[in-house]
Formats: sequence, C-alpha cells, structure tokens
Amino acid sequence: MPEVLVHMVEGRTPEQKKMLLQKTTQAVVESLGVRPEQVTVQIVEAKADSKAKGGILFSER
Amino acid sequence: MPEVLVHMVEGRTPEQKKMLLQKTTQAVVESLGVRPEQVTVQIVEAKADSKAKGGILFSER
Amino acid sequence: MPEVLVHMVEGRTPEQKKMLLQKTTQAVVESLGVRPEQVTVQIVEAKADSKAKGGILFSER
Amino acid sequence: MPEVLVHMVEGRTPEQKKMLLQKTTQAVVESLGVRPEQVTVQIVEAKADSKAKGGILFSER
Amino acid sequence: MPEVLVHMVEGRTPEQKKMLLQKTTQAVVESLGVRPEQVTVQIVEAKADSKAKGGILFSER
Amino acid sequence: MPEVLVHMVEGRTPEQKKMLLQKTTQAVVESLGVRPEQVTVQIVEAKADSKAKGGILFSER
Repeated sequence: MPEVLVHMVEGRTPEQKKMLLQKTTQAVVESLGVRPEQVTVQIVEAKADSKAKGGILFSER
Repeated sequence: MPEVLVHMVEGRTPEQKKMLLQKTTQAVVESLGVRPEQVTVQIVEAKADSKAKGGILFSER
Repeated sequence: MPEVLVHMVEGRTPEQKKMLLQKTTQAVVESLGVRPEQVTVQIVEAKADSKAKGGILFSER
Repeated sequence: MPEVLVHMVEGRTPEQKKMLLQKTTQAVVESLGVRPEQVTVQIVEAKADSKAKGGILFSER
Repeated sequence: MPEVLVHMVEGRTPEQKKMLLQKTTQAVVESLGVRPEQVTVQIVEAKADSKAKGGILFSER
Repeated sequence: MPEVLVHMVEGRTPEQKKMLLQKTTQAVVESLGVRPEQVTVQIVEAKADSKAKGGILFSER
C-alpha cells in the first residue's frame, strides 16, 4: 500500500515508462514514509482510439 | 476533471467507441457545467477471457 | 457491462449527480446498444484536499 | 453490483484467469448475499514493463 | 500483486466487509498461486446517491 | 492526461497528502515531458475496515 494506477494513451517508450514507474514510486515513498516494497504502480494504457479529452480522440489529434 | 473510466470487453467497432467517448463527454459537460476540455474519458478494455458476469466468462457466452 | 467510474471532487449537488448518472448511462446505451440494466455508473468522490490538477490542490484553487 | 477490478501483470494461463474470475465472483456472492448475476469481475492486465513493485519493473525481476 | 478494487454502495456491515476482504484475498491466492501478503483488496464505497444501475440511483430503489 | 489514482487507507495528514499530490504530479511531468496542467492526481481513500493486505484488515493491524 498504496497502489497507484496511471491511466494514459499508448505510445511512450520503455525508457519513459520505466522512469515513470520509478519516479512515481519514489514520490510515494518520500511523501508517506513507506518502504518502496509496499508501493505498486501500474500503467493502464489505452489505444489512441479509446481515449478522448474534450470529446476529441487521441487518434484524431 | 472529472476523469471517466469505462470498463468493458473488447470487440466494439471504432465507430461505437468514438460515439461512446463523445456522448459520455457530453453527458458530463451538461450535468456538471464544466468545459469539454476538462473532461477525459478512457475505455479500459479486457479480452473476453478476462471478464465475467455471474461467474461466466464473456468468452464462453 | 460496461461499468463506468467517474472520478471527481466532492461538492456537486444531488441534482447534478443524478443527472450525471442518468445521462452517462444513456450515453453508454445509445453508443453500444446495450440495455440500461446492464450499465452501472459509480461516482468516486475525493475531498478537495485529496485531488490536484497541475500539482495544485482543489482546496487551494 | 459490486464491480470488481483485478490489476495484475500479463502471463497467467487461461485456466488461472478463469478460476480467478469464478472464485472472486463466489467470494462476493457468499460475503454480501447478492446473486451471481449482479457481480462483474474484470482483469486489468499490464505488460511486464508497465508495472513495478518497489520501483522494480516486473520485466526486470 | 495483484491489487483488487471492489466498487459498491455503502451500507454493508463491518462483518460483511471483513468477510469480503478475506474471501477475495483467498480467491486470488488459490487461483494464481501467490502468497497472501502479495494481495491487497480495497473496497471503494459510494453513497447511495452516487451510484446507479440502469440509470436508477441506489438511493431511489 | 495522464490521470493518476492513488488507492490508500485514511489517516494521512493534509501535509502528507499535499506532498503526495505534488510529487506525483512532478514525477509524471519529468518522466513523460507533459505540462503540469495536463496531469490530474486523485487519492482514493478507504476506511481502515475496508482495506486488507494478506487478508488482514488495516483496522486490525
């Protein structure tokens, strides 16, 4: 605990995702004083035609 | 804000998903009086063998 | 199915939330051709000090 | 209702996922006294490079 | 891992919730062959006016 | 985008939650190269009797 979910569109590089997972874990550890092993972070990716902001699909931006 | 997640099984057409994203955004805008750009909607799709209703998999229906 | 989650800050009126639940259900029904009884929508509310956009808490806006 | 989401890394067999969906449904039914048809369970899978515990990716374990 | 979220309306007894948390954990352990300590289960409760099925609020059923 | 959800038990101080929201936002910005205004983070809190790890409720630890 805690469990973090990051919802975003596909297309990031493996390096970006690794950095995201590591930095988010670190943010939780520093803020709450928990041990790193207690923190899980999962990226929930959507295809670009399955996510919209302002009603505009990411596949049409 | 708000952020909407729609959890469903794979298999809808791109047209259905586009309509879902647009109509859901519109529903939020009309109900809460926010601007469209503030609303994100993400479809979280599962394979048919990864979702069940009443204990029966969608792949076995 | 589908199951919809709407994540937002507390403070909307009961009327706004009712309209949000009804219109979102309708959006799903019209887009996917499912029956209304198949659709659940849950609002996940956060206190204003438990949500941020751009790193700025909603309690400080 | 209720709607259950299980967040985990890819790689389980179809048999494991089927058992997971069925046993989780049963757990909800027995605990809350609802009918099975009221319970949906969806597995939200991440690629091994999209999930970390303790800041260590599942693809690097 | 895995992390389980159960979305439901408020109003269950502490005994029901305890049973739900324990039985769901057990379901995951038996299905996936993980150790209990790897499994977290969180109940995400909504007020009865913040959840609907078929467009009908649980507060109006 | 992205939208981050942090699932945890109640009981953190307002200062801890503020730091969590800010540092998590910063982690996303640095990793993905997005602008802060694109990032929302919501803490989804559970009562101690509504979350378990290893089948043991946080209210009984």
